[in-house]
Amino acid sequence: MNVIYNPNRSQWQELTQRPVFDVTELFSVVSPIFKAVSERGDDALKELELQFDKVSLQTLRVGDDEINEADSLLDTNLKDAINKAYDNIYAFHDAQRFEQIEVETMPGVKCVQKAVPVEKVGLYIPGGTAPLFSTVLMLGVPAKIAGCKQVIVCTPPSCEGKVNPAILYAAKCCGITEIFKIGGAQAIAAMSVGTASVPKVDKIFGPGNQYVMAAKQLAALSNVAIDMPAGPSEVEVLVDDTCVPAFVAADLLSQAEHGPDSQVVLVSTTDNDVVKLIEEELEHQLNELPRKDFAAKALRNSRCVLFDNMQDAIDFTNEYAPEHLIIAAEDYNDIANQITHAGSVFLGNYSCESAGDYASGTNHTLPTKAWAKAYSGLCLDSFIRKITFQEITEEGVKNLAGIVETMAEAECLDAHKNAMKFRRKSLNI
Amino acid sequence: MNVIYNPNRSQWQELTQRPVFDVTELFSVVSPIFKAVSERGDDALKELELQFDKVSLQTLRVGDDEINEADSLLDTNLKDAINKAYDNIYAFHDAQRFEQIEVETMPGVKCVQKAVPVEKVGLYIPGGTAPLFSTVLMLGVPAKIAGCKQVIVCTPPSCEGKVNPAILYAAKCCGITEIFKIGGAQAIAAMSVGTASVPKVDKIFGPGNQYVMAAKQLAALSNVAIDMPAGPSEVEVLVDDTCVPAFVAADLLSQAEHGPDSQVVLVSTTDNDVVKLIEEELEHQLNELPRKDFAAKALRNSRCVLFDNMQDAIDFTNEYAPEHLIIAAEDYNDIANQITHAGSVFLGNYSCESAGDYASGTNHTLPTKAWAKAYSGLCLDSFIRKITFQEITEEGVKNLAGIVETMAEAECLDAHKNAMKFRRKSLNI
Repeated sequence: MNVIYNPNRSQWQELTQRPVFDVTELFSVVSPIFKAVSERGDDALKELELQFDKVSLQTLRVGDDEINEADSLLDTNLKDAINKAYDNIYAFHDAQRFEQIEVETMPGVKCVQKAVPVEKVGLYIPGGTAPLFSTVLMLGVPAKIAGCKQVIVCTPPSCEGKVNPAILYAAKCCGITEIFKIGGAQAIAAMSVGTASVPKVDKIFGPGNQYVMAAKQLAALSNVAIDMPAGPSEVEVLVDDTCVPAFVAADLLSQAEHGPDSQVVLVSTTDNDVVKLIEEELEHQLNELPRKDFAAKALRNSRCVLFDNMQDAIDFTNEYAPEHLIIAAEDYNDIANQITHAGSVFLGNYSCESAGDYASGTNHTLPTKAWAKAYSGLCLDSFIRKITFQEITEEGVKNLAGIVETMAEAECLDAHKNAMKFRRKSLNI
Repeated sequence: MNVIYNPNRSQWQELTQRPVFDVTELFSVVSPIFKAVSERGDDALKELELQFDKVSLQTLRVGDDEINEADSLLDTNLKDAINKAYDNIYAFHDAQRFEQIEVETMPGVKCVQKAVPVEKVGLYIPGGTAPLFSTVLMLGVPAKIAGCKQVIVCTPPSCEGKVNPAILYAAKCCGITEIFKIGGAQAIAAMSVGTASVPKVDKIFGPGNQYVMAAKQLAALSNVAIDMPAGPSEVEVLVDDTCVPAFVAADLLSQAEHGPDSQVVLVSTTDNDVVKLIEEELEHQLNELPRKDFAAKALRNSRCVLFDNMQDAIDFTNEYAPEHLIIAAEDYNDIANQITHAGSVFLGNYSCESAGDYASGTNHTLPTKAWAKAYSGLCLDSFIRKITFQEITEEGVKNLAGIVETMAEAECLDAHKNAMKFRRKSLNI
């Protein structure tokens, strides 16, 4: 790790910067994929699957046989674990339900805000180096609670043309039956334009590589919404002398193993000895990891920032706005109360990121690249919309007419004024 | 209006389609503006103001003198109206505050969801053909309630280099003091990259022409969030025989006067006579309007869709997903309960759109172009973020460890497993 001592505030911007990446440069790569899928639908999807996932598919949709078979292929332990994670995620997201709001702002003027689900949602589940069935739960559970009418999943198949059974099992837990063997930008294109097999959705969710992300951002410019922009995953571990070096090292590595571009930051108010212990643990634990090449690369770009006092450490953290923040410090509740920019926060020595990644109940789809300054992590809100309603009675017209007519006139919008004036006059007010 | 009788469902897609518009085509126009503002800051902004708003500015920020003067320039009636609108908008948005959620998903596993304001927000207020001070209230009031730390406004100055006093007065009501004389794409560029005068913000809000919208969407691809994508304003009026033709015509015209590209749709279950009465009223009222050229153009593209039964009318409405929906029909509450796709809904003969545009309390920043299928209108949520926290105790580790370790192993993420395993082992579990 690169250790930086007490950086001056003028250096913070540089220290908190992520690699700059212009997503529009990838539009030229993903645009032709959208064009092909728009014009030739399923045929184009099958060709693209052959090209990118090296698999020749007869049908894109996963059949009932394959879904039922998943149940028998999966270890009972894993099914139990998925079921329990499902319960925790369900409990936390179910508590996020929105109660309708009704306010009579003036006598005769009733305003209502009501939630409705996003009707058609598409969940993208990456394949690649790890089968991310946990992401199925993180997206599928809130979609189910929200009451989305149509929930589909796209995920790249293996070279045998199969979907990982854990993904199918997790989907089944969430009541999802429409699953398609499509990966990459072509999956995003399919869900945003629709084909004979794949329904067009209203909103697309889920992680992916830079091509998937570029495809989502391109799609969001036309006719579909997306959950959030995203970059490589990040963790910051904020520690004081009460931290446990072995735990801190394990947390840093659990981020680093995601990929060579993972962002790993240690912020510390401890003396050098604790940092050295953490570094020793890092080296020791790293050697045992199957994905150590990824992790080692990510660690080479990682930083340890040492501060004299906790207030600077907190301010720096808010400037960095990490996706995941672990606070392994004595006063973790006091510190947490001052955290305004983070995706999800893990409190104390026993709260590891992997708890939230899988099963504590919080969502693991979170804003990266300091997007936490403007975006929430995925939650029930992501799957609903709020519509407002207003009911104005004769008394309401009496109370509102003067205000509306005066303002409309001042904005030079006479027809707006008339709409109220005609109603007022009809009541002889 | 073009009248269509009982269209077959297969025709609905075409009938509900908005003009197709590829925002990326405008990126080549707005990109150089971003580049200029990034590289040369305030100097570039002043040059662009001279070029586009025909005004030579010494300073970009509105001074205290001009703000104080606004108070004396404004009619007392208008100030009263603004104050009362402010109160209603405040009351409805204040009721939208989010209460922290805490759930113990398992013994020893506490999950919390907490709201924090978006710290720095930028509000764009168009100038042009009408001074939209009402938009200042619609954006400024929820920003104030949310507790945003820094709220700035950009708005194009008049050719005398002044900002409309009603805009300044409305801003003052919302406690906004940082106001800049900058319009168009350059305003969006300034707020997204920051200059010596204009602070960089985390999220940009507000309406604008197609260049402003393209600039917002381009900005949203890099480092700033936006409220929502947007196109020309829209109204659908859904009527039965109980509607008042003069009111309906006034409502259609109040949308049409926004501009020649405004979308105006009448959906009716009445017989032809009622439609004829509405058309007569349209013609009659149109001739009295100062903005009749705009309105007449918008009306030429408008549609009246007649259905035999209300269920088809409701289904068609949900397919169209209008920004504003006025339900001038007897069973307006029953119908409203079946509306799943709309920005804001106006119930009954006395609820005109202009009530919500100005003063009922609901927000007038709403999703157009069928974006209502995926987006909410602006509300308090738009100015907050929700952060999750989790605190896991020793008991929590005991309950979670097996689940997390099993899932991490199945996802081939050993370091994720280790982070939990080391904690479990330290407790001799």
